[in-house]
Amino acid sequence: MTDARRPLQIVDPDDPRIAAYRGIRERDLVRHQKRFIAEGTSVLRVLAGQRRFGIESALILENRFAGVADILGMLPAKTRVYVASSDVIDAIAGFPMHRGVLAVGLRRDDADAAPDTARRWRTVVALSEIANHDNMGAIFRNAAALGADAVLMDAQSCDPLYRKALRVSVGAVLTVPWHRFGHADAMLDWLETNGFALAGLSPRGDAALEHWEPPAKAALVLGTEGPGLPDRVMDRTQTLRIAMANGFDSLNVATSAALVLHHVRNARTGPASG
Amino acid sequence: MTDARRPLQIVDPDDPRIAAYRGIRERDLVRHQKRFIAEGTSVLRVLAGQRRFGIESALILENRFAGVADILGMLPAKTRVYVASSDVIDAIAGFPMHRGVLAVGLRRDDADAAPDTARRWRTVVALSEIANHDNMGAIFRNAAALGADAVLMDAQSCDPLYRKALRVSVGAVLTVPWHRFGHADAMLDWLETNGFALAGLSPRGDAALEHWEPPAKAALVLGTEGPGLPDRVMDRTQTLRIAMANGFDSLNVATSAALVLHHVRNARTGPASG
Repeated sequence: MTDARRPLQIVDPDDPRIAAYRGIRERDLVRHQKRFIAEGTSVLRVLAGQRRFGIESALILENRFAGVADILGMLPAKTRVYVASSDVIDAIAGFPMHRGVLAVGLRRDDADAAPDTARRWRTVVALSEIANHDNMGAIFRNAAALGADAVLMDAQSCDPLYRKALRVSVGAVLTVPWHRFGHADAMLDWLETNGFALAGLSPRGDAALEHWEPPAKAALVLGTEGPGLPDRVMDRTQTLRIAMANGFDSLNVATSAALVLHHVRNARTGPASG
Repeated sequence: MTDARRPLQIVDPDDPRIAAYRGIRERDLVRHQKRFIAEGTSVLRVLAGQRRFGIESALILENRFAGVADILGMLPAKTRVYVASSDVIDAIAGFPMHRGVLAVGLRRDDADAAPDTARRWRTVVALSEIANHDNMGAIFRNAAALGADAVLMDAQSCDPLYRKALRVSVGAVLTVPWHRFGHADAMLDWLETNGFALAGLSPRGDAALEHWEPPAKAALVLGTEGPGLPDRVMDRTQTLRIAMANGFDSLNVATSAALVLHHVRNARTGPASG
């Protein structure tokens, strides 16, 4: 335990020490910043327990402080911990913050999963144009729970470190390796060069997921729910479909990811035992 | 095509004809009202195409009108169709309505799936204390896509006709049969009396989902993500778990529902062919 656990009281929403927390919602619109906002106890716990991303400070609602004291005790000594009343926190954030647990994380230059560390990956999720933060977060949550080795994405996909994506992922964005490519073609090129077989999920897919025997190294390519994968991507992947009940043509993209990852996991390990 | 397609222009947010649309967010807090709000083109299309729920009126942003004309053409002649500018619609709703497609649906007394129609059901989802609207909606979406015959719920679960639950379900709340019981025990009693084997999903489950052979009539019992199913419920069901990767202990409840329904569907039909 260090001084980081002796919190600094913030009483003025304009205090320059908490400038990074100001106007959180507007900040969401700026991509790829060095700093990102982690929100909620579960995400703070994951952030404090890993070393891939840094943590600059935490800002805690005063009546939530005791509840997160064990997490704050895990932080490096230099991390500033601020507390404030709910009025002050709401004024800082710009809207009512019911959760009252915030931190500023730091993106490091080497935080992206470097593709040259990828030799042991067997199952990766490759995302094309996933712009919805909830979907991005849910895909990472499912990737973590169902054992994907990494999540790759193109430049048209949203930033996984957006506040809401990070929150929906329950912190999985901080633990699952990920890498952003400039263009979907560059991502697929890299995957093929590195021995991955491409499998694109689509309601128009040629093969039924249930019949599919996953290859030794599989990249599961997912696109947006409406338009789905571009023809250009479909043309260079094996395409899989998930059988649906009559009259309903679409699952959420993160749910589709879960079904495919579950299938791959079962096929690879045999049905889980014990 | 009838006069319903000749829209009435609304210029005053206080016009009494559109009172049902006023303060939509606050209305969400009142459960089990006769009227409910359907939002977005996809939900309006489902609402217009079914007869289990009524439709009283629609309120359309004027520049969205042409895009939904085909749906409005499906409505009964007596249905009022209003159009308004975005300023007027925002003032009516009480917040910026980016979608601009709204309707007032009507809950009919016999809209609940009467349990005595349930003889042919083979796979039902039974919900205990699902209070989150997104989860409720996503469960219905997955139930529709993956072929559940019905969704049952206890009184502690939220109303599937809440605006956001209905929207997230992409209208599946209007098409998948559902019924609310007063108490979880009453729901489980009814299921057992009607020949359903109960299977409770839990990270603490005794059997691995992947090994589970679904019975002829299966009720998949799901609870909230944090506390999970109450011991009282766990004690009277077979319990199933989904194998997860190390260090991650929880899938979203709607995602769990999808994995189980997919497993049941494959076990029942054999892997989908063709």
